[in-house]
Amino acid sequence: MTTTQVVGAGDLFQVLRDGRPRTRAELVQETGLARTTVVVWMNALADLGLITPAGTAASSGGRPPSRFVFDPHAQFILGIDLGATHGTIGLTDLDGKVIARHHEQLDIAAGPTMILDQALDAASNLLKARATDPGLILGVGIGVPGPVEHSTGRPIRPPIMPGWDGFDIPNYVRRQFDVPVLVDNDVNILALGERATAWPDVDDLLFIKVSTGIGAGIVAGGVLQRGAQGAAGDIGHVQVPHGRGEDDLEATASGPAIARELSERFDAHLDAGDLVDRIRIGDPHAVEAAREAGRSIGEVAAICVSMLNPSTVVVGGRLGVEVQEIIAGVREVVYRRSIPLATQHLSIVPAQGGVDAGVRGAALMVIEDQLSAIAIDDRLATTNQSQR
Amino acid sequence: MTTTQVVGAGDLFQVLRDGRPRTRAELVQETGLARTTVVVWMNALADLGLITPAGTAASSGGRPPSRFVFDPHAQFILGIDLGATHGTIGLTDLDGKVIARHHEQLDIAAGPTMILDQALDAASNLLKARATDPGLILGVGIGVPGPVEHSTGRPIRPPIMPGWDGFDIPNYVRRQFDVPVLVDNDVNILALGERATAWPDVDDLLFIKVSTGIGAGIVAGGVLQRGAQGAAGDIGHVQVPHGRGEDDLEATASGPAIARELSERFDAHLDAGDLVDRIRIGDPHAVEAAREAGRSIGEVAAICVSMLNPSTVVVGGRLGVEVQEIIAGVREVVYRRSIPLATQHLSIVPAQGGVDAGVRGAALMVIEDQLSAIAIDDRLATTNQSQR
Repeated sequence: MTTTQVVGAGDLFQVLRDGRPRTRAELVQETGLARTTVVVWMNALADLGLITPAGTAASSGGRPPSRFVFDPHAQFILGIDLGATHGTIGLTDLDGKVIARHHEQLDIAAGPTMILDQALDAASNLLKARATDPGLILGVGIGVPGPVEHSTGRPIRPPIMPGWDGFDIPNYVRRQFDVPVLVDNDVNILALGERATAWPDVDDLLFIKVSTGIGAGIVAGGVLQRGAQGAAGDIGHVQVPHGRGEDDLEATASGPAIARELSERFDAHLDAGDLVDRIRIGDPHAVEAAREAGRSIGEVAAICVSMLNPSTVVVGGRLGVEVQEIIAGVREVVYRRSIPLATQHLSIVPAQGGVDAGVRGAALMVIEDQLSAIAIDDRLATTNQSQR
Repeated sequence: MTTTQVVGAGDLFQVLRDGRPRTRAELVQETGLARTTVVVWMNALADLGLITPAGTAASSGGRPPSRFVFDPHAQFILGIDLGATHGTIGLTDLDGKVIARHHEQLDIAAGPTMILDQALDAASNLLKARATDPGLILGVGIGVPGPVEHSTGRPIRPPIMPGWDGFDIPNYVRRQFDVPVLVDNDVNILALGERATAWPDVDDLLFIKVSTGIGAGIVAGGVLQRGAQGAAGDIGHVQVPHGRGEDDLEATASGPAIARELSERFDAHLDAGDLVDRIRIGDPHAVEAAREAGRSIGEVAAICVSMLNPSTVVVGGRLGVEVQEIIAGVREVVYRRSIPLATQHLSIVPAQGGVDAGVRGAALMVIEDQLSAIAIDDRLATTNQSQR
């Protein structure tokens, strides 16, 4: 059941990703695909600039066969990871490796034109600083902190993004970069980036971001699941089992929620940064508040684990990574509440993707979209030809 | 984004499923696939007996081209749907349509050899009664009421199936029917059958079975999700948010749980059948108990809806279908608790697949497996040839 199937140009691209040059005949032998299929798909990959000719192989008579190679630096991708209060704009190679980045404060509530202008200016500056031709940009991937209709790239009723509801982000971005523009929820791109970085072989992964908000990215059957309206993974707005009253998870266990509780206790104004500082110096109230928040997240995560049976739960986001009491609370409750079969081989681990995970995920989303577009284009092109 | 991709023999089979005979050239034109690909896949489909030659087309000179057609009656599939207390054994055509069925009481706790013998005897009798050659059986699909490691067909720690833990069901069945045998959780095969019957175009569907037990089948991104150990969809053993004490959903809202509560209230011994009867005559205590059970299921379903953002929630199982207070309670809580984006276009509907849904789903599981096997076999065969 674990045989890798080569059923599309994307799979062929995966074979070439090791960087070894190959002739068409070598790929036919390696993949078992028909020669015509290999030729069509390799032409499509070459048209996209994902592979380039790399000299010729020895000939057994006649014209020597061309070799093709994946050159990760032949083109670049812009990855834009927008959070509630900060954004990371990055330039990646075709492997999704971040080769330049810019990080800045922003206020997502300032609205789409101001924030996108700010991000696109930063992107242009990155390109200028590296003397990179904007014509070498394969596409732009963007993550935003709210639900997105992925097929159109429009946020849908995003709670903390006033002015963004229904805004056509791809159309706006294409005025400056006339390339494919893909948009998704920030947690989804984090999940993609985290999986590519640390868990490439895990097909069932639950990524939980704990930060200003709380949300999840679901990889099931090896595929990021977005749901019918792109709202999958919104665990921040479910009520906490065994929780206090009617508060949802975000109002119970997010950074601002924990800081608010501590502020009330100490009659002082503390923010999420203060919380992290107090935990670092061992303040027992802060430690207990974080642990309790982790338990609340664990109550919801336990249901997700029983529901989806992932093999890996990754806890990310600033609080999820920096405050170990959070993941400790998640582990405590998930292992207590979930059925044995679902937790027998379950790992609950902190995110390892670091600051680049969002940018990387955004870039990988673009690459995957381009590869899946090949299959469709290829089919339409062939059909059109045969109808002429 | 809705273009149908033909990326495997299974997709080619879907094209042929309309029953119209086609030549290879016509399929090349219709699908845009390379001729060699069409030839290889059609040979594989013909080898499996899924398509058969159907005369020749008019020739424009030379040998007239052969037409191929999908004949749903060329072979048959055995579908076996085993519940806790009853089983349905059915014979389907290659469309998964049930053409003969046998229903009988059983006690799953009697253990694998006794129960499988009982089911296989019933299957043999079905074949004899219809004078169907056992050699025409393409495969056997089986659903059991517990978690299953789908890749091996072995139940894993099934709570209500003593003696079945780790039992190699496919190996046992193949002594009588030496064909591919696929095994899955009964709720998963119900979800497959229900989707094929009533929701073929829905890619994100949550099926909830409410009967002796409570479980879910998850279709996400158009694919049945089984999770890392085949335990996905086990919502029966999560604790109910806002529930009474530490009881899990099955102990709160299943048929036996509701009957137990009413028995205590009336100091009488009632079973799930009595419950259905009392609700039918309008007993207000029974009606309220069922409604409350529906609300508990709704508490868990609301989290699943926020998590997965399905477009359709199907409530099935005997109680789910026969007792409308159950689905009313589910609707009440899901629409109250879930985020607006996730419920905006959400339908919560009773199952429509009827008694045949499980058998049909089991048969479809076999067909899908056979079709996906073609892609792998094809590739291996070609690779082996080129290595000779």
